[in-house]
Amino acid sequence: MALAVGMRVLTRSLLRPWVRVPGTVPGRTGPAAGGGDGVRCFGSPRVLVEPDPEAGFAVMKMRNPPVNSLSLEFLTELLISLEKLESDKAFHAIILTSDCPGIFSAGLDLMEMCGRDPTHYAEYWKAVQQLWLRFYLSRLVVISAINGVSPAGGCLLALSSDYRVLADNPKYAIGLNETLLGIIAPFWFKDTLVNTVGHRTAERALQLGLLFPPSEALQVGMVDQVVPEDQVQSVARSVLAQWLAIPGHARQLTKSLMRKPTADRLLKERDADIQNFVRFISRDAIQKALRVYLEKLKQKKT
Amino acid sequence: MALAVGMRVLTRSLLRPWVRVPGTVPGRTGPAAGGGDGVRCFGSPRVLVEPDPEAGFAVMKMRNPPVNSLSLEFLTELLISLEKLESDKAFHAIILTSDCPGIFSAGLDLMEMCGRDPTHYAEYWKAVQQLWLRFYLSRLVVISAINGVSPAGGCLLALSSDYRVLADNPKYAIGLNETLLGIIAPFWFKDTLVNTVGHRTAERALQLGLLFPPSEALQVGMVDQVVPEDQVQSVARSVLAQWLAIPGHARQLTKSLMRKPTADRLLKERDADIQNFVRFISRDAIQKALRVYLEKLKQKKT
Amino acid sequence: MALAVGMRVLTRSLLRPWVRVPGTVPGRTGPAAGGGDGVRCFGSPRVLVEPDPEAGFAVMKMRNPPVNSLSLEFLTELLISLEKLESDKAFHAIILTSDCPGIFSAGLDLMEMCGRDPTHYAEYWKAVQQLWLRFYLSRLVVISAINGVSPAGGCLLALSSDYRVLADNPKYAIGLNETLLGIIAPFWFKDTLVNTVGHRTAERALQLGLLFPPSEALQVGMVDQVVPEDQVQSVARSVLAQWLAIPGHARQLTKSLMRKPTADRLLKERDADIQNFVRFISRDAIQKALRVYLEKLKQKKT
Repeated sequence: MALAVGMRVLTRSLLRPWVRVPGTVPGRTGPAAGGGDGVRCFGSPRVLVEPDPEAGFAVMKMRNPPVNSLSLEFLTELLISLEKLESDKAFHAIILTSDCPGIFSAGLDLMEMCGRDPTHYAEYWKAVQQLWLRFYLSRLVVISAINGVSPAGGCLLALSSDYRVLADNPKYAIGLNETLLGIIAPFWFKDTLVNTVGHRTAERALQLGLLFPPSEALQVGMVDQVVPEDQVQSVARSVLAQWLAIPGHARQLTKSLMRKPTADRLLKERDADIQNFVRFISRDAIQKALRVYLEKLKQKKT
Repeated sequence: MALAVGMRVLTRSLLRPWVRVPGTVPGRTGPAAGGGDGVRCFGSPRVLVEPDPEAGFAVMKMRNPPVNSLSLEFLTELLISLEKLESDKAFHAIILTSDCPGIFSAGLDLMEMCGRDPTHYAEYWKAVQQLWLRFYLSRLVVISAINGVSPAGGCLLALSSDYRVLADNPKYAIGLNETLLGIIAPFWFKDTLVNTVGHRTAERALQLGLLFPPSEALQVGMVDQVVPEDQVQSVARSVLAQWLAIPGHARQLTKSLMRKPTADRLLKERDADIQNFVRFISRDAIQKALRVYLEKLKQKKT
Repeated sequence: MALAVGMRVLTRSLLRPWVRVPGTVPGRTGPAAGGGDGVRCFGSPRVLVEPDPEAGFAVMKMRNPPVNSLSLEFLTELLISLEKLESDKAFHAIILTSDCPGIFSAGLDLMEMCGRDPTHYAEYWKAVQQLWLRFYLSRLVVISAINGVSPAGGCLLALSSDYRVLADNPKYAIGLNETLLGIIAPFWFKDTLVNTVGHRTAERALQLGLLFPPSEALQVGMVDQVVPEDQVQSVARSVLAQWLAIPGHARQLTKSLMRKPTADRLLKERDADIQNFVRFISRDAIQKALRVYLEKLKQKKT
């Protein structure tokens, strides 16, 4: 991943409401961010898991307000929740959705990339890789019920699912818009997108940092279905029934047949990919640009 | 290929009329299955070849009733017929079609995979590989006139052609539905599908074992044209004229340019792929499941 | 690339008005072919460059009448013009278009492949490779304003751009029609097409040598937009504005991420690809066929 922040861009397209701003949101580690209002639910402070073992699936709700930024802690909780469900034979599927109104996930957390040391950057990037690897290759059927905007890393999470149902709200754009921030998507983000929408659409979308509104997202194949906003969860459940009807072992092996070559490309270059990220993010110019950017966001909020 | 037969599936979706059932169909080796009613025709008992050397092509009709199961003998006859036409310079193309009403081909013959010894399984699988390799890379233009349902191996045969014309009958579904049987398609089935419909459509179709009715098959690109049932043969001939108008040598080299990399992947791992299949199919659990399955089919028929 | 000229084809589909015929067109090296009517323009005799450094782009007009055949000299001038703009930091994009009415580019120049020695063939092919490599990987945004027919190498040039706007004139077909001439497209032409329209569409288009009229070109993704003929240039400029709004460094790295693996395939086999071409084109049969073909064209013109 390469950051090359252009200041023109900062003032124009980056000051979006969904970007997590330090100091203006509930503390990352505070108990207020967690909880869970359902008695039958388990999970972690930021990941609300509503299991239905008899039906064979769980709903996994992302709750890292205000924008489900993929902080290291949130990533870790997502991973732990997924692994917990994967290791329980009662579960064959999950529905991944958001508990934060209007946003699925804003993607990677810039706070994890600014003002820390190389060890932290390496740890963070490894967790990002791990999240993708686990979701992309999960033995579970993963249906994304996309009930909000999903730029960059949020889009990646959706693309790692087996099926994507998007709420038909023109604000709920989806896409790998890294270039708009002066960043480039890593090769495995790119591979995941190419696998979903094909080479040409991916090439144009990645270069232009396109965020697709629902109708276009459906047309290019970024999502599989667009439904009225109040039906996202129920449609996701109906879709799930179709997937659960398939003999599980055969379905899992087939998923692996399709996706393992793509995952293997990262696995083979995993350390180099981490070193790449650390080297890039540690540059003085990048750090300075990130500080300026985060400061602007903060000022805009206050 | 991995079999993991789920009993739920057995009673629900596998008891299809097109599956070949031992004892209820004309004997595989008996003369009744062969013949040929056209005086101008050559071929073998199960493959009726109607040559038109002056027009440069032959119609190859599959006649292994009731469902054109790809038994070892039928595979072998298909291969011999193809090689005979390929070695005759008068021929530049074939139209592949079925002589069995309502079915193009039901795919691989489960009888070849049950109650035999490892040597037989290896021989069978090698013939299946060979069939694909020869059709996929044939110097001849191969047009499939798909006049019936074509699941699994039947679909593969169609996908190996250069062009697919499907009869517009909602019963004539086409797809690699292996997972429905608890089986997974081998990697070269998968590669052939990805080359035809792209990665994402293939991923969903293979995981869910989708059988596409004609309108959907056309939409996703599984076939090139859907025409009224009584026009399948005539349209296939019209299409052929377009292909025969291209300088043959250039067309063949271009076909090879497109397909050889895919074929080479199997050629490089051919023995391993056979060992894989033999090891899998020889498992006690698989053999038992196959016996139960075939028994059920037999009972349903009688 | 393999030539296998069929005489049937010669008289039928090759005698097209856009093929460059020796002796009937302005001399390749004469000053008449060059010039440039705009005072603000630079460039070479055959490539008219209209720079707009303040807007950050230049229009590059191909002027090698009558059909913009890619002769060695014209290729070289295209390369030099591109490199000149690439090395000037004021420029971020080019619009590639034609100054020859009704034709974008007729593709490779058969005169460079006939009656010369192996050294010349090698030099020519290396320049063709170089043209593709430079355009396909250019740091500049390349928008093709396709204002005429673009067969074979002309199509390749368009496919190497970042975005293609085609004039809506049914005569302006686009495609890699090499097989119609008994030739096959080299693997990197094929790769470029597969990256643009996908494997299956490429397979059929390349085997049949399809030239797509505008509506079909749009439908299969060969071009990105079809507009009224008098709006090609203005639409290209509007499109350019969208591309120039993206932080340049991130966009360039993303373009490289998408395209470098394809370019690397040629770079790895560049010499073998040249030897291949030289060996093929030097054959007596091929040379004879080319002579006959060019003679026929000449007769038709006079």
